[in-house]
Amino acid sequence: MIKIVIIGSGNVAQHLIMAFAKSKEIVVSQVFSRRKETINHLIDSKKITADFNDLAEADLYIISVSDDAISEVSSQLAFENRLVVHTSGSVAIDSLDSKNRKGVFYPLQTFSKNKAVDFSTIPICLESENESDYELLEKVAQSISKNTYKINGDQRKSLHVAAVFVNNFVNHLYHIGNEICIENKVSFDVLKPLILETANKVLSLSPKDAQTGPAIRNDKHTIEAHLDFLTNENQATLYKLLTQSIQKNGKEL
Amino acid sequence: MIKIVIIGSGNVAQHLIMAFAKSKEIVVSQVFSRRKETINHLIDSKKITADFNDLAEADLYIISVSDDAISEVSSQLAFENRLVVHTSGSVAIDSLDSKNRKGVFYPLQTFSKNKAVDFSTIPICLESENESDYELLEKVAQSISKNTYKINGDQRKSLHVAAVFVNNFVNHLYHIGNEICIENKVSFDVLKPLILETANKVLSLSPKDAQTGPAIRNDKHTIEAHLDFLTNENQATLYKLLTQSIQKNGKEL
Repeated sequence: MIKIVIIGSGNVAQHLIMAFAKSKEIVVSQVFSRRKETINHLIDSKKITADFNDLAEADLYIISVSDDAISEVSSQLAFENRLVVHTSGSVAIDSLDSKNRKGVFYPLQTFSKNKAVDFSTIPICLESENESDYELLEKVAQSISKNTYKINGDQRKSLHVAAVFVNNFVNHLYHIGNEICIENKVSFDVLKPLILETANKVLSLSPKDAQTGPAIRNDKHTIEAHLDFLTNENQATLYKLLTQSIQKNGKEL
Repeated sequence: MIKIVIIGSGNVAQHLIMAFAKSKEIVVSQVFSRRKETINHLIDSKKITADFNDLAEADLYIISVSDDAISEVSSQLAFENRLVVHTSGSVAIDSLDSKNRKGVFYPLQTFSKNKAVDFSTIPICLESENESDYELLEKVAQSISKNTYKINGDQRKSLHVAAVFVNNFVNHLYHIGNEICIENKVSFDVLKPLILETANKVLSLSPKDAQTGPAIRNDKHTIEAHLDFLTNENQATLYKLLTQSIQKNGKEL
């Protein structure tokens, strides 16, 4: 059995605890948390500690705290030369204190407190300083997911930025669609099949080939009608800029 | 049996021909097309005509041509007082020639030539001038879809604008994500589970509640790191504007 200690009790930490609970090769032997109440429904409370000096010996320490706290937490660990990883998409491997062996274990997904996720489909991006540590990380990742990737620091940074576009920004466009529906007394439900199909389409078509709509057709009449319709200035500004961006891109073909 | 004549042979017309072929209450008795070769794999070629004077008598005429051509096509019909509808999200019902009874039959979905769609889940937005025509349109729509909606002209216009945001613009953000992956030699596949989960999330959560990421957290450190990373000016401009838009919106809470 591979022994893991998880440091942190936020969204990602909680989903990891649940995912490892189903694995036969992994045991979460301890969780560090100052907020015991957030996780005592997920793990035996005797396994929870709030004292860095009390951390058990393990094969792997997963620091899953806010980006800003990773460096500080890693320097507070009271041991040396063990394998310590963080779970962040945007923090460099070298932010971890160098008294331990460093690595990254980044599950690229959006986690919500109230929504279960199927961890087996989540890509896990792995990085380490040496090959034997990488093998351990890969074994741990493969015990909970079918999709593991060797990703270096620069690639991980690029994935994190790309993820902001395809997740955070996309969700904001859903929000604007919802706002327009509310303002015009139409149910947002009417748009949901379109939202799903738009996502499903790029599983098999490249987004460039999947592009449709007035911008790529350069249908000036429709674009003007839409801009007339959008009295909300913020919505109109986004409409213009995204239309221009689609058209610029079309020309690069 | 309800007899339908479809005028046009583009993407939407083709998908309608296929959907009605499975319906037991509807028969497509004729299709008008000047490009016979685009549809003769879908329907008996004897049912295809390219002559407006040759159009058969039917309960419903569906004009499914480009937005700009709808008005002109409707005025070329050589009969009067029959039910004639178009399939556009952005064209007013009154663009149809008033010698016939007018209506709208707008399937809100993105149609690609090479990708089959399950019509049963596609919302169909209906509008007509009188109640008995509406009942017929509803019967026709329900024979191919579970989701039919009574939507007036203004509501349809708003749905069309909202659809540009949640479909065309969202797809463009997928494209930018893909570009970033290509530039940094990472597979776009890594992002696909995230894309699907982001879409699935808003089926049960409102987009406002589903919003995550550096913008809504006002995580200035990460936002600056991302802007440093984005050397492509167009990508950086979109990143800034979408970040500002998310933050403005958060404040309205």
